[in-house]
Amino acid sequence: MPTYKLTYFDVRGYAEPARILFHLAGVPFEDKRITHESGDWEKMKDKTPFGKIPVLSVDGFEIPQSAAITRYLAKKFGYAGKIPEEQAWADAIVDQFKDFISSFSQLLMAQRTGKPAEEVARIASEVAMPARDAFFKIIDGILEKSKSGFLVGDSLTFADIVIVENVTTLEKNQFFTASEHPKIVALREKIYSIPAIKKWVETRPDTQF
Amino acid sequence: MPTYKLTYFDVRGYAEPARILFHLAGVPFEDKRITHESGDWEKMKDKTPFGKIPVLSVDGFEIPQSAAITRYLAKKFGYAGKIPEEQAWADAIVDQFKDFISSFSQLLMAQRTGKPAEEVARIASEVAMPARDAFFKIIDGILEKSKSGFLVGDSLTFADIVIVENVTTLEKNQFFTASEHPKIVALREKIYSIPAIKKWVETRPDTQF
Repeated sequence: MPTYKLTYFDVRGYAEPARILFHLAGVPFEDKRITHESGDWEKMKDKTPFGKIPVLSVDGFEIPQSAAITRYLAKKFGYAGKIPEEQAWADAIVDQFKDFISSFSQLLMAQRTGKPAEEVARIASEVAMPARDAFFKIIDGILEKSKSGFLVGDSLTFADIVIVENVTTLEKNQFFTASEHPKIVALREKIYSIPAIKKWVETRPDTQF
Repeated sequence: MPTYKLTYFDVRGYAEPARILFHLAGVPFEDKRITHESGDWEKMKDKTPFGKIPVLSVDGFEIPQSAAITRYLAKKFGYAGKIPEEQAWADAIVDQFKDFISSFSQLLMAQRTGKPAEEVARIASEVAMPARDAFFKIIDGILEKSKSGFLVGDSLTFADIVIVENVTTLEKNQFFTASEHPKIVALREKIYSIPAIKKWVETRPDTQF
């Protein structure tokens, strides 16, 4: 088995779906976490392939970009979709999430960089909240039609993991109201009750993001 | 062979890498183009899976999201990377492009929605141009180390097609200066000189985007 090292900040964020896949598959990996206080990130930034983390090292071969990492592991461990059309739908859902979160991030960026309150409010109402509502309408619609309760086909894919993990983060930050999305909450319960995932979710570092 | 229909606006944009893959593989497909003037888009929008195009129909089964479509066809036709690690790198490059273009799009959106000139200039200098420069530094760096001249491994992948096509669009809109990126220009020449691609590029509808 290859030696895996997953390097990311000490949060769930973009690396957590990959961590969950390792725990689900029972495959050992080094869960390397960089704290902001250590200053290690500034030292290693230029040595990463794209100047960003997460980075997955597989026997020393480095893979950047969270969706690429998650898809790579999902394929290795059997959670990428059973047929090409399922794989394409899992990919499409994750890409749709990426579109949503890049719009949504404009709000977090405006808050963090101390933009005036009215500018933050404008970005929230014109960009972030419409993007969020449109995204969850799509996910609700997919689950409405799903016979298995999963987002793609009749079994777990990395798309389910990416979505429910991010729902958890949005909820922790008051951007997701569980009572408005019962099907998404049911999906999360379904995924978090898989024994290997349940064990990890109950014991993992509890971070805000 | 399945019946393929690719639906998009009458531009190259997000659908062109998929069109190129069809021409490269010599696989027939319906190149369905929606014009803004026809009003057809407003009529069909709600019937698409995610309210957006491109959508690829494979014997009536619909796949949304351009990267998912392009990856699906690349896998079918043998241009997704030869081994899992190459596939992950092709994916990572396309995701990195997606990150760049979502930052860059803030500029196009500000221009189109008639924001004040100083706001447009601020977005250009603080967001769009830094995102562009960081992205092309990554691509230049990859090509600098490439022995084959391709972005991934020793043969063509959909990552090459996505990047060179978008370079063409950026250049047409004065956002890419060929003389600053000789390796990227060489990659484009390499790809555009593949006979099946050359024929398509020479005869395809010439659109601004």
